[in-house]
Amino acid sequence: MRIALLGGTGDIGEGLALRWAYHTNHEVIIGSRDPEKARTKAEEYEAELDSRGVDVKINGFENAMAADRASIIVLAIPPYHVSDTVESVVDSLSAGDVLVSPASGMKRDEDGFHYHRPGAGSVTALAAEAAPADIPVVGAFHNLAAGRLANLDAELGIDTLVIGDDPDAKDTVSRLAEGIDGLRALDAGGLANAAEVESVTPLLINVAMNNSGLHDLGVRFD
Amino acid sequence: MRIALLGGTGDIGEGLALRWAYHTNHEVIIGSRDPEKARTKAEEYEAELDSRGVDVKINGFENAMAADRASIIVLAIPPYHVSDTVESVVDSLSAGDVLVSPASGMKRDEDGFHYHRPGAGSVTALAAEAAPADIPVVGAFHNLAAGRLANLDAELGIDTLVIGDDPDAKDTVSRLAEGIDGLRALDAGGLANAAEVESVTPLLINVAMNNSGLHDLGVRFD
Repeated sequence: MRIALLGGTGDIGEGLALRWAYHTNHEVIIGSRDPEKARTKAEEYEAELDSRGVDVKINGFENAMAADRASIIVLAIPPYHVSDTVESVVDSLSAGDVLVSPASGMKRDEDGFHYHRPGAGSVTALAAEAAPADIPVVGAFHNLAAGRLANLDAELGIDTLVIGDDPDAKDTVSRLAEGIDGLRALDAGGLANAAEVESVTPLLINVAMNNSGLHDLGVRFD
Repeated sequence: MRIALLGGTGDIGEGLALRWAYHTNHEVIIGSRDPEKARTKAEEYEAELDSRGVDVKINGFENAMAADRASIIVLAIPPYHVSDTVESVVDSLSAGDVLVSPASGMKRDEDGFHYHRPGAGSVTALAAEAAPADIPVVGAFHNLAAGRLANLDAELGIDTLVIGDDPDAKDTVSRLAEGIDGLRALDAGGLANAAEVESVTPLLINVAMNNSGLHDLGVRFD
């Protein structure tokens, strides 16, 4: 499968790119608003994988070109760029494509991080509002610590929660998630349940901030 | 320590009562609006513990009398009764007492359960607003499946998140939590962080509803 990581030069994009390229045979494509930056980062990822004996080609493109080449398009971008990024790639989407939203809206105050719920109800719902009606949006990969994900020596042993209203698209994304060693995909229901999933992201940061010895936290349902 | 479980006849109250009576030497007191119901349930808990070779006295009282006898007062009641229950026991509280809030506000629709955030910001904040200024309120025990907690044969191996603005009160509640075998207490920061903690309760229900084989879920941060 071809997976485009829009904003794939950022930290969560880096982690997903490295893990999929390392653990699976999916073709990873890096997207960025700046195609030169996408190419540079793609080469860095190739070098990291090469140092681990994995010879794989990762291409970098401007976001719309990256989306055009892939059937899974991950919005690895900040929540306030979700709507305009989806709109910028709309012409590159075609039937059968799936958009994936891993972002959470957060604000910080003196106590810690808080879920900043968008008017649409969730960041995933925001992406769905911006997407064409025939392109399903699936929420996933919200609760992964980027640094841990990007460190291929780090074991995961954690869960990711998958949400969406299209069962086939959810199945596809769940299988992609479970292609990553140590990651279990759990179904958290429809898009309407996205806010509770996205709320875990600030919670993980708060727990890591307040307990010495805990950092780069993930979550496991048991 | 003396722990009063207001609403201790309900399912989360039952679980905490049995676990503390079984695993620790703390004195457990059951509170209810109906003292007769409190006494009947307390006797049921005694019988359950007796069947496991634990000979312990559990008393049942009307809520205010239960609160009067304890220094830890757990509001094991639905969120919409938090304010009036705190007000009904205010005269029974004295310096050094700690109120504990385990409730989460939820509403249900066709997709599942959703966090229903009170105007105060969280159920824990609602309790703090109703409590006298010198009585600290600590949020804890939100994310425990009641049935699993009340089944003393069930292993836990899960976390509970503790929130509050009074460090000493938080320490006390964290120690009480860790007196229960298999329960780890993690600090999730101040009261302002309570909404993200309480949001995990509907999430756990949604995950259990959507994944066969998973039920009575808890959460582990790792």
